[in-house]
Amino acid sequence: MEYKEITIYDIANKIGVSPTTVSRALNNHPAVNEKTKSKILQVAEKLGYRSNFFASNLRSKKTQNVGVIVPRLNSSFQSSVIAGMEKIANETGYNLIISQSLESIEKEKTNARTMFNSRVDGLLVSLSNDTANIHHFLPFKEKGIPVIFYDRTPEEGPFSSVVIDNTQATYNSTKHLIQQGCQQIIHVLGKLDINIYANRLKGYKYALMDHDIPFSLDKVLQSDLNENSGEELAQKILQMKPFPDGILVSNDICAASCLQTLKSQGIKIPEDIAIVGFNNDMVSRMVEPKLSTTHYPGYEMGEVAMKNLISQLEAPSKTIQKTQQTVTLRSHLIIRASSLRKGK
Amino acid sequence: MEYKEITIYDIANKIGVSPTTVSRALNNHPAVNEKTKSKILQVAEKLGYRSNFFASNLRSKKTQNVGVIVPRLNSSFQSSVIAGMEKIANETGYNLIISQSLESIEKEKTNARTMFNSRVDGLLVSLSNDTANIHHFLPFKEKGIPVIFYDRTPEEGPFSSVVIDNTQATYNSTKHLIQQGCQQIIHVLGKLDINIYANRLKGYKYALMDHDIPFSLDKVLQSDLNENSGEELAQKILQMKPFPDGILVSNDICAASCLQTLKSQGIKIPEDIAIVGFNNDMVSRMVEPKLSTTHYPGYEMGEVAMKNLISQLEAPSKTIQKTQQTVTLRSHLIIRASSLRKGK
Repeated sequence: MEYKEITIYDIANKIGVSPTTVSRALNNHPAVNEKTKSKILQVAEKLGYRSNFFASNLRSKKTQNVGVIVPRLNSSFQSSVIAGMEKIANETGYNLIISQSLESIEKEKTNARTMFNSRVDGLLVSLSNDTANIHHFLPFKEKGIPVIFYDRTPEEGPFSSVVIDNTQATYNSTKHLIQQGCQQIIHVLGKLDINIYANRLKGYKYALMDHDIPFSLDKVLQSDLNENSGEELAQKILQMKPFPDGILVSNDICAASCLQTLKSQGIKIPEDIAIVGFNNDMVSRMVEPKLSTTHYPGYEMGEVAMKNLISQLEAPSKTIQKTQQTVTLRSHLIIRASSLRKGK
Repeated sequence: MEYKEITIYDIANKIGVSPTTVSRALNNHPAVNEKTKSKILQVAEKLGYRSNFFASNLRSKKTQNVGVIVPRLNSSFQSSVIAGMEKIANETGYNLIISQSLESIEKEKTNARTMFNSRVDGLLVSLSNDTANIHHFLPFKEKGIPVIFYDRTPEEGPFSSVVIDNTQATYNSTKHLIQQGCQQIIHVLGKLDINIYANRLKGYKYALMDHDIPFSLDKVLQSDLNENSGEELAQKILQMKPFPDGILVSNDICAASCLQTLKSQGIKIPEDIAIVGFNNDMVSRMVEPKLSTTHYPGYEMGEVAMKNLISQLEAPSKTIQKTQQTVTLRSHLIIRASSLRKGK
């Protein structure tokens, strides 16, 4: 298609100065006098010269854009996180650019490159479940562009992160199910390569251990944790011997869908099986019986991650934090009808 | 913070050529010989010179980035649309950058500027409900950067769009409620300045008219269409005289939340009040009784919008479409238990 980008040559021709002078003026070089500089800026604006490094350099070297890379946008949790980020960004004059990795490290690399080339001032990332290393974020580190990870964070590396205590959270849910009389508890989670799921599994194990219930790998099921996999999960559970009396699922969408399917097959919730989800999504309040779940403070996580990023961006260079830090936010168990087995 | 951007001066100093030569080489100017050009490109890459206009110009003047501006990301509908866009983008080697206007024209303007300065190859937009004019998209038109609107589209202007027939959709829902014996039907929708809601109101009116039911503005309620406003809506309905026997809500989240609240107050659904939502979100399948709704083909809308954009991007300049076109996708009513009043 027809697409003519204005270059420094066009500006130079228009005014009758050399391209070097234009480049220098746009770069705020002292060798160009103020009058010429002002003329060049005027013409640049009139011709629609797009602010690139030179132009934005004139201001503060900053674009006021913060990049966000999420695994998937179709998640209530990520939506809440982004809403929290936007709140702080709006208050402080920053703008978000968002992209999703779709759980692929290759796409995450492309996203990181795009964000880098778009000159974001900082980057907030929740890793794809496919991400084996974080080399693609090192160029940011080298350029001094701050990167903060949240929720799904790398185990190592020179970056700060914001998380919840996933081990404690599933410890609490599992203990609650045990206290409600459950002995055969299924734990459904995502890929164990992701640290949040590995940590949740630990919490489940520790709670069983502390209550003298044997741990068995047969009771740990991996899942895509979506609506369809909730139905498949229910079908799998219906075949199980001994029949489980508790299910702990790593998100509410999958848990709600499993609950609906089990009910449609005549299973009573929570009498036959108690169910606990994770996240406190809207759907946990809409199913019947309402779903017990862990309140995951997504909105707050977004706020904290963005605040920390901005404090790094706006810190005078001498006070900038040199060491990485991990902020852990509090989550809590919400007990609803899906796991309250009265009489037990 | 410490942040040193590599400029053409650094490259020039490193090699011992003039900045103009570097700029020309990066711009693929014929006056620079191939050997020097290759050396300059090598050094530029080694120093971490960031691809800006000059560099990307060397390839195809394209960044392979497509911008998307949505009102809000915390919507199942927008998530589905974006998933459809990503599918096509991935297949064709494009990358999405997404931002949300949060229903504010000011933020939409900032987003448009950010996308413009980030040099997106094209832009896909669903308007904020605050957007009174689309002047902020004209710079794209002037530069020949294609913009396609979807879902919430401008009534006029030089742009193409992808929509559903909103009038037909609510006509069908309203007619269904009437056929189920409803006579006092409440219609709940967003701001009437947005053409989709104005068109939906038409469909409701026409269906009443065609069935000799008088239209009354008292029965049209505006709402934020979220979980909270669903509860408020239910409270309002409980006070109404005469008591309504049907509710048509412009999304499923608000409809599901209203349904739950009415039920908790002893109202029988659908016997006392039949309810129909819009969008076919997951929550419509999770409430009890399951919610009748309009299947809105969000994923398909995303695919179609992206395909049309890419065909404009990749068309030879002579064949590029000069006139705007509107693509209308088919939606359909899904009848579930929330509106099936047997015996009537």
